[in-house]
Amino acid sequence: MSVNIGLIGLGMIGRDHLQRFKQVINNANVTAICDINSGVANALAQEYNVTPFYDAIEMINSELVDAVFICSIGPVHKEQILAAIKAGKPVFCEKPLTPTAIDAREIIEAEVSYGKRLLQLGFMRRFDPGYQALKQSIGTGELGEILLMHCAHRNPSVPESYTLEMAINDSATHEIDIIHYLLNENIVSVRVDKPRKKTSRALGHLQDPLIVIFETESGVRIDDELFVNCHYGYDIRCEVIGENAIASLTEQALTVTRSANGVGRHIAQSCMERFATAYDREVQNFVDRVKSGSGMTGPSSWDGYLVALVCDAGIASLNDGLKHDVTIPARPALYQPLSES
Amino acid sequence: MSVNIGLIGLGMIGRDHLQRFKQVINNANVTAICDINSGVANALAQEYNVTPFYDAIEMINSELVDAVFICSIGPVHKEQILAAIKAGKPVFCEKPLTPTAIDAREIIEAEVSYGKRLLQLGFMRRFDPGYQALKQSIGTGELGEILLMHCAHRNPSVPESYTLEMAINDSATHEIDIIHYLLNENIVSVRVDKPRKKTSRALGHLQDPLIVIFETESGVRIDDELFVNCHYGYDIRCEVIGENAIASLTEQALTVTRSANGVGRHIAQSCMERFATAYDREVQNFVDRVKSGSGMTGPSSWDGYLVALVCDAGIASLNDGLKHDVTIPARPALYQPLSES
Amino acid sequence: MSVNIGLIGLGMIGRDHLQRFKQVINNANVTAICDINSGVANALAQEYNVTPFYDAIEMINSELVDAVFICSIGPVHKEQILAAIKAGKPVFCEKPLTPTAIDAREIIEAEVSYGKRLLQLGFMRRFDPGYQALKQSIGTGELGEILLMHCAHRNPSVPESYTLEMAINDSATHEIDIIHYLLNENIVSVRVDKPRKKTSRALGHLQDPLIVIFETESGVRIDDELFVNCHYGYDIRCEVIGENAIASLTEQALTVTRSANGVGRHIAQSCMERFATAYDREVQNFVDRVKSGSGMTGPSSWDGYLVALVCDAGIASLNDGLKHDVTIPARPALYQPLSES
Amino acid sequence: MSVNIGLIGLGMIGRDHLQRFKQVINNANVTAICDINSGVANALAQEYNVTPFYDAIEMINSELVDAVFICSIGPVHKEQILAAIKAGKPVFCEKPLTPTAIDAREIIEAEVSYGKRLLQLGFMRRFDPGYQALKQSIGTGELGEILLMHCAHRNPSVPESYTLEMAINDSATHEIDIIHYLLNENIVSVRVDKPRKKTSRALGHLQDPLIVIFETESGVRIDDELFVNCHYGYDIRCEVIGENAIASLTEQALTVTRSANGVGRHIAQSCMERFATAYDREVQNFVDRVKSGSGMTGPSSWDGYLVALVCDAGIASLNDGLKHDVTIPARPALYQPLSES
Repeated sequence: MSVNIGLIGLGMIGRDHLQRFKQVINNANVTAICDINSGVANALAQEYNVTPFYDAIEMINSELVDAVFICSIGPVHKEQILAAIKAGKPVFCEKPLTPTAIDAREIIEAEVSYGKRLLQLGFMRRFDPGYQALKQSIGTGELGEILLMHCAHRNPSVPESYTLEMAINDSATHEIDIIHYLLNENIVSVRVDKPRKKTSRALGHLQDPLIVIFETESGVRIDDELFVNCHYGYDIRCEVIGENAIASLTEQALTVTRSANGVGRHIAQSCMERFATAYDREVQNFVDRVKSGSGMTGPSSWDGYLVALVCDAGIASLNDGLKHDVTIPARPALYQPLSES
Repeated sequence: MSVNIGLIGLGMIGRDHLQRFKQVINNANVTAICDINSGVANALAQEYNVTPFYDAIEMINSELVDAVFICSIGPVHKEQILAAIKAGKPVFCEKPLTPTAIDAREIIEAEVSYGKRLLQLGFMRRFDPGYQALKQSIGTGELGEILLMHCAHRNPSVPESYTLEMAINDSATHEIDIIHYLLNENIVSVRVDKPRKKTSRALGHLQDPLIVIFETESGVRIDDELFVNCHYGYDIRCEVIGENAIASLTEQALTVTRSANGVGRHIAQSCMERFATAYDREVQNFVDRVKSGSGMTGPSSWDGYLVALVCDAGIASLNDGLKHDVTIPARPALYQPLSES
Repeated sequence: MSVNIGLIGLGMIGRDHLQRFKQVINNANVTAICDINSGVANALAQEYNVTPFYDAIEMINSELVDAVFICSIGPVHKEQILAAIKAGKPVFCEKPLTPTAIDAREIIEAEVSYGKRLLQLGFMRRFDPGYQALKQSIGTGELGEILLMHCAHRNPSVPESYTLEMAINDSATHEIDIIHYLLNENIVSVRVDKPRKKTSRALGHLQDPLIVIFETESGVRIDDELFVNCHYGYDIRCEVIGENAIASLTEQALTVTRSANGVGRHIAQSCMERFATAYDREVQNFVDRVKSGSGMTGPSSWDGYLVALVCDAGIASLNDGLKHDVTIPARPALYQPLSES
Repeated sequence: MSVNIGLIGLGMIGRDHLQRFKQVINNANVTAICDINSGVANALAQEYNVTPFYDAIEMINSELVDAVFICSIGPVHKEQILAAIKAGKPVFCEKPLTPTAIDAREIIEAEVSYGKRLLQLGFMRRFDPGYQALKQSIGTGELGEILLMHCAHRNPSVPESYTLEMAINDSATHEIDIIHYLLNENIVSVRVDKPRKKTSRALGHLQDPLIVIFETESGVRIDDELFVNCHYGYDIRCEVIGENAIASLTEQALTVTRSANGVGRHIAQSCMERFATAYDREVQNFVDRVKSGSGMTGPSSWDGYLVALVCDAGIASLNDGLKHDVTIPARPALYQPLSES
């Protein structure tokens, strides 16, 4: 039996997932799509032979839909998620969970009341084979006690709509979750360093690059270079320094070329290229969990809430340059120490 | 609508595909399985909730089955493939197509008579992202005219049942097809060099390593090191030397470690590990083509026949040490210059 | 005509240089050696067939000596250097120039009064082919404007005598000079971050690892991981992030091995191994400059003074955790904008 | 005491060594130079302040000269070497020892009669840190018994004067000696494969690339790709396949760059760049042995004779395409099983 998916939000990422369900995903069919722009909804409904909706809540409650897939903008996530929980339907939500930690808290409470994890959050990096191999190296103990991490998050460029705060809320957000995933402990402080020098490739309102420094409960120090106009590629680096050994992500290049340019390996040019496998696997995981009926195991509402708390502190530090502590509330029993993927 | 698959042969590779259909493959369900060992067939039929058969021809003709998936031993492939063609049902067949080129010829004739490509052969390497990237480099012309290739096919070890001829028929067979795939031209001669020195890790009846030298129609020279007791890993190398540049496969390692052993990257330990993605993608491709109804596009009967012709020459060279030419018959119109994957 | 060298201080580094003069260095002979321990001086004088001295000033003024090579401990450097300058003899001095910036200042004044550069300081990294290639990449402009640097200075282990301050004065000192060398501008602030977590491999009085953050005049931000009990090797990393491209040091491994440990490359195990070529080249450069008679061009007294100023600020930050500014006095005309090597 | 060197032949390599003696080499001075072109000899004699000669034999016998350095063309090597041996003066000779094995034989006999090794041959690769590390890996036994080697000798391009035979006598000659050096055993057969396809970058009289296949006494099989118009760089590859592990040369790149071209490493563009260190070290080794007075230890006349024998067989195979055996005469006691470097 296939899972019937209702997908909300037909922007770039929504259409990408629509295509993914058609071509890659097993045991699921998109049966309904929803967008406030009825023209877009109708056109894609015809192309994909599915039922169009223009009101998300109506679609969430429709009998056509077993599970909800949210690709709408952040500010409407809360209402849609709460409706899905009320309907007892599993829900996948693209990040962020909500724009602020306070809104996320309401979702936590609704899910706890429901008594079962219904939500998987779109932190696709947890499904990347590279990060999973890093986590395994840490887990086996071959690195010894972890002391430091060096991360870099480099984009070739960003659109004009990209704001300074998005360096935290949209870019660093991925490292914030993956630090938690890899180390299995919370971040307790954040400090944003603004180097005096910025790239001339960045728009005037941006400060690029930035360095964000995190500290975890046990004292691991992580620095994260955010460089969103690096020009040369979409380049994600992660180096985990342990007492005994150090493990890092590679570029995972498929081929190597010897030419007049020297010995060369390809670097990914976009998020979609770099994390293609991870996107496929996170969505299949969601479908598999829905089919199993036994509750979600991927990135949770709690994970999204924790990230929102760290981002709030990061934005504060972006403004005043100081180190900000993050206070972590008690974790409800519903959320395992770390959600497994 | 899902494709109903009938799978023949429940040995190691058959069970592996059975699991793959359940967990990974989209738009297909195994509905029937067949093995001459009724105990095995019954047990797996119960586990997977499918119908057991003990006679392949009966299953091929059953209404339960839209498409046939052959994982039986080589000598029975011809009969099963011919039955599928007679029934007009698409058929995936694990390599080899048939043990000899003469048998393969009968399949070609049957498929040509039927008038449409019904068969996809299990040359999974064509679906490996690494080989596809190599093919793309060749195709763009960035390497210039291709002159040479250096290949290596290294296994950690082989079972006692592995014979000297299997170095050609089971190991080199993959390079034979991939040379054709990458260069888009036929191999016209083969010579097997038996170095005087062999590894003490090989069983007494083997000559290991071997070097096989191929030549293509246009004169590209390829050497292939077959080293099936190399001990350290399952290591597939391919370097394509062009007038302008050289491209090679990498090990595609996900992480790199700095430890008391130096800077280290993982090497795959088995065929299943190295080509995991390729196996998944070849089977999904088969299912997608069946669903589309418009004929197969993956490795064809003709590709299998060509490989069988080269293997025949390789076995002859293994016996007398001389260079043997391969005579390529005229290609029926049904088979495109090169099947696309 | 060979240069006659008088070498002071017969500890580990002194003996290493003695051997180097004998085996590697062109156009120079050690003719006199000096150590306060007369037994050591006599024994080595006999072995190398040179004249022993027990008083450094006496040896510096001896007619046997054209140029002075100081390998004694830091606190006596000033007296010996001033004596060499007074005698008008070229002098090579192992780092540090002096233990404090104030003492260094006296040397600057003496050399300026003399009117010609007589001193080369032992910052051997400037003679490393890797750092020179990095400097060349920066110089050609292919990286674009430099924005950030990430450095790491990792030792397998340190002796019990290693103090917390030595992480700045002995380890970071090399990055401090090399930042100046690579970027051709001064460091203007230092902050030492002490991560809460330290390696259990470090002795109790150490805080290991440390992160030091430098800022240059133009605003380049550099972080330097000092990890002196990293266990796995002597591993020096340097990554220079520009607007257009990023360049990093490699491990410069000579061979790569495929074995049951995977694909592996060697990492140097000591400073002497990693910088073997650099040590040879810095000493030959000194001799060549002495022979040429036209003044020193390698790392200068001024470079040593600048490093001492930054180290003073670093020690202050190590104590209070705050960012400390470095005030750079006016550069005497004697010292070029950047000494060339 | 410095060694007084008389250098014969002031072409490109002769001038390069002249410069090397001036700038790099320890304990030696060029005191005399000789060229049949008196204008060239006079001009360089003035520039380097040395005595010019126009007759090699006269210079060899001059009191100005302690040791002879031969950079003249191959056909005159025999006469000059024999003169040096007669004069009892150590002699360095650029490869080839002589154009044919028969001529080399005369030198062997003269040196054996003299009773002491006086000659070092210019096989500089033995002094390359990369090949030395490979030899060490083989020597420690970590690779296990050696079974195969894959070599490649790639030049960006060759001058019009380069003949087909030079692929053997000038290019493969280096691999022939290094195989002997690495494996410590003789080559006993050679076969040259001429691929049908050649690069359009090669001049019409050349067959480029070629593949040469060697076999050693114990049965190690080596293939050597000679590609002298590869266009992209001077790229020397060597992979040694053992029962337990495989070791290969790296490109020894100093830095790695991340740019719009991907992740890139430099490849050497010429022999002089790739083997800069090796050239310096071979000449210093010669000088050190002359000073020690105890006979040469680098590549010997015997090594040159062995290479000449293999080249003779290679030229024969180049003409008829067949495998040619190499008969190795008994080694005189003067020549150690393998000359050490």
